[in-house]
Amino acid sequence: MTVKNAFYAQSGGVTAVINASACGVIETARRHPDRIGRVYAGRNGIIGALTEDLIDTSLESAEQIARLRHTPSGAFGSCRYKLKSLEQHREQYERLIEVFKAHDIGYFFYNGGGDSADTCLKVSQLSETMGYPIVAVHVPKTVDNDLPITDCCPGFGSVAKYVATSIREAGYDVASMAKTSTKVFILEVMGRHAGWITAACGLAAEQEGEGPHILLFPEIEFDPERFLAKVKETVERHGHCVIGVSEGIKGTDGKFLSESGLRDAFGHAQLGGVAPTLAQLIKDKLGYKYHWAVADYLQRAARHIASRTDAEQAYALGRAAVEMALAGKNAVMPAIRRLADAPYRWDIVEAPLAQVANVEKFMPRDFISADGFHITDACRAYLSPLIEGEDYPPYRNGLPDYVRLANIAVAKKTGRDFQV
Amino acid sequence: MTVKNAFYAQSGGVTAVINASACGVIETARRHPDRIGRVYAGRNGIIGALTEDLIDTSLESAEQIARLRHTPSGAFGSCRYKLKSLEQHREQYERLIEVFKAHDIGYFFYNGGGDSADTCLKVSQLSETMGYPIVAVHVPKTVDNDLPITDCCPGFGSVAKYVATSIREAGYDVASMAKTSTKVFILEVMGRHAGWITAACGLAAEQEGEGPHILLFPEIEFDPERFLAKVKETVERHGHCVIGVSEGIKGTDGKFLSESGLRDAFGHAQLGGVAPTLAQLIKDKLGYKYHWAVADYLQRAARHIASRTDAEQAYALGRAAVEMALAGKNAVMPAIRRLADAPYRWDIVEAPLAQVANVEKFMPRDFISADGFHITDACRAYLSPLIEGEDYPPYRNGLPDYVRLANIAVAKKTGRDFQV
Repeated sequence: MTVKNAFYAQSGGVTAVINASACGVIETARRHPDRIGRVYAGRNGIIGALTEDLIDTSLESAEQIARLRHTPSGAFGSCRYKLKSLEQHREQYERLIEVFKAHDIGYFFYNGGGDSADTCLKVSQLSETMGYPIVAVHVPKTVDNDLPITDCCPGFGSVAKYVATSIREAGYDVASMAKTSTKVFILEVMGRHAGWITAACGLAAEQEGEGPHILLFPEIEFDPERFLAKVKETVERHGHCVIGVSEGIKGTDGKFLSESGLRDAFGHAQLGGVAPTLAQLIKDKLGYKYHWAVADYLQRAARHIASRTDAEQAYALGRAAVEMALAGKNAVMPAIRRLADAPYRWDIVEAPLAQVANVEKFMPRDFISADGFHITDACRAYLSPLIEGEDYPPYRNGLPDYVRLANIAVAKKTGRDFQV
Repeated sequence: MTVKNAFYAQSGGVTAVINASACGVIETARRHPDRIGRVYAGRNGIIGALTEDLIDTSLESAEQIARLRHTPSGAFGSCRYKLKSLEQHREQYERLIEVFKAHDIGYFFYNGGGDSADTCLKVSQLSETMGYPIVAVHVPKTVDNDLPITDCCPGFGSVAKYVATSIREAGYDVASMAKTSTKVFILEVMGRHAGWITAACGLAAEQEGEGPHILLFPEIEFDPERFLAKVKETVERHGHCVIGVSEGIKGTDGKFLSESGLRDAFGHAQLGGVAPTLAQLIKDKLGYKYHWAVADYLQRAARHIASRTDAEQAYALGRAAVEMALAGKNAVMPAIRRLADAPYRWDIVEAPLAQVANVEKFMPRDFISADGFHITDACRAYLSPLIEGEDYPPYRNGLPDYVRLANIAVAKKTGRDFQV
């Protein structure tokens, strides 16, 4: 059989488990030396391919590669950079082919979300459009959980476990303090367009009266009056109120609430921070003492409390991507198929990239309760398996022992620079 | 021997391990039925004693009490309420005696920080000042780590482990993204007066170039120019910059930075949030893309990543408090004594409450580097053992399985109400 090298790159916002997918790709490729030579990783994602800044992963020991499985973030660097269409930017594609050819690359693995699926699809068509033979497989990843076909997206389950755990813990805390001190606690989570992560907060409320009591989804228009009434009712009933809010909630004017409230000392709009905006509203209108937290990167990087399900799926999808490529599949993405909720069973199927690229999956309306402030049992049944199981990293000196690879560059061969 | 009941209460801000101390108190008391009858807990701290709202912990099974050991927050409710002096508010003390007498209470265990130590001291003097025989022992607790005599305070080690882990994880994340996106990440942590928690962030920086690169302590006056120069230098050198900041940093005007920057839409000062204030400063002056997080209650409630050392010490101090009381010690606090840094060894000694009450322990200046932006090796040697070891809670449905006690009230006997 012909031996070709493989290119692997990470794209977009990184997650607690994207390196587990990288680990799945590299370890599986290493088991097929008759077909795959070296795995070159793009330094900072696809930019590494365009600038011929490739990392030779074959120079890393098996032990170091194995440690990727429990290391958050993007070990080779990621980027936010979307290839334009062939018509708009043909020279980018010519450059990719130049680099691929120079390094004998026959496999392209792209690990990212919806935009990346689109890039991967374009690369998969290079043999057709530009006569360069390549097999391109997309490895799904996004904390936003918004890719179609796949039942869930690696990275999401771990964020879900983190936010549900964190809001439970903070909820216990504020319940202890409410008699004489803090009565309202607000946790702001990611999810600018879809409320998947906010919904995951809801998993913490298993018993009557347990927080979070209110969830604010980007899918539901924010109505200050209804919200304040709900906060008041909750404090009067339970003595305290725990709120999970998406960074992306919008007011009746259609603007992000995070952009409408705060001003700095010069009157400029303060970017980010819907939690403090809500806290101020509650303070002004209801007078309750509050605390708020913004989890930001902490939530998507929290490998220390990753979901075992999520970590396993991330690895398995990396492995499946290589297996699909070796089977000659082009322009596909391995996807999770759910076979049963409880006990949770899943397998991996092939999704055609043409059906994945640029398609967003939204949260079903029946996952949100009728009043818009919580999740339904259907949502709970969907989410619960995704946070199942723990998968602790090893610790050294009291801290998670994450790997930093040497990331040694491959010698350049094209003899020219390329500006991105 | 005479059998007397015991009173136990939690005070001030709760922690990830204060219930472990409660567990130590209750389990130890149960092993001495010949001396201690029932342990009554104050509902919402000392307020429960004043209002005769007592919880009968003897109605909880051994299994439920054992679960306190891994449950964050204050299981019986805490409060922020400081007894005034005997001269200022004699009727409060008369009421305490009335309630203690009605419920045959001979032991008083108060679990809190500096203010609580003062309250405990006053109660310990009741036999002398008001002729009511009682043994009062203080159980230390505070994430602020500011109690004297004891080498460290239960609650702090777990916050330290949480913030160091979180800033390491977020640091890996931003390092992955820095090429095309976020270059600066800011984590705001607790510590209004002392930089202990901020210092703990520094433990994450073990290798050259690893974040956090900059720490901002409340002990060091914030100088915007020096700070911005350091951020710029760090980004130019490492490609990104990770910052840990105390909520309590102050500007040259002596005001909290968190109160000087943001205004809401009506021009009111926005309370809290030094991280967004710094982020805006960096954006305005240096133009870097940023992300920020405010951990708030998440950090002190994060039992899921508690330090094993901390959890063990919290339990041991609860146990020691009961043992000291049984030995007839009054007006004392069991304190941690450090015997060695590495391997870490400690034991428990007696601290006279008169030397603990209202005394704050500050961070030594030689724990902060000369430039004021990081910790020294001396600081690292002090902090490292405190985050050593993991002590995971059990999980159910993918979430930490924390206990909620029944908290059944003791029948009132005094026949009168008391307003607090």
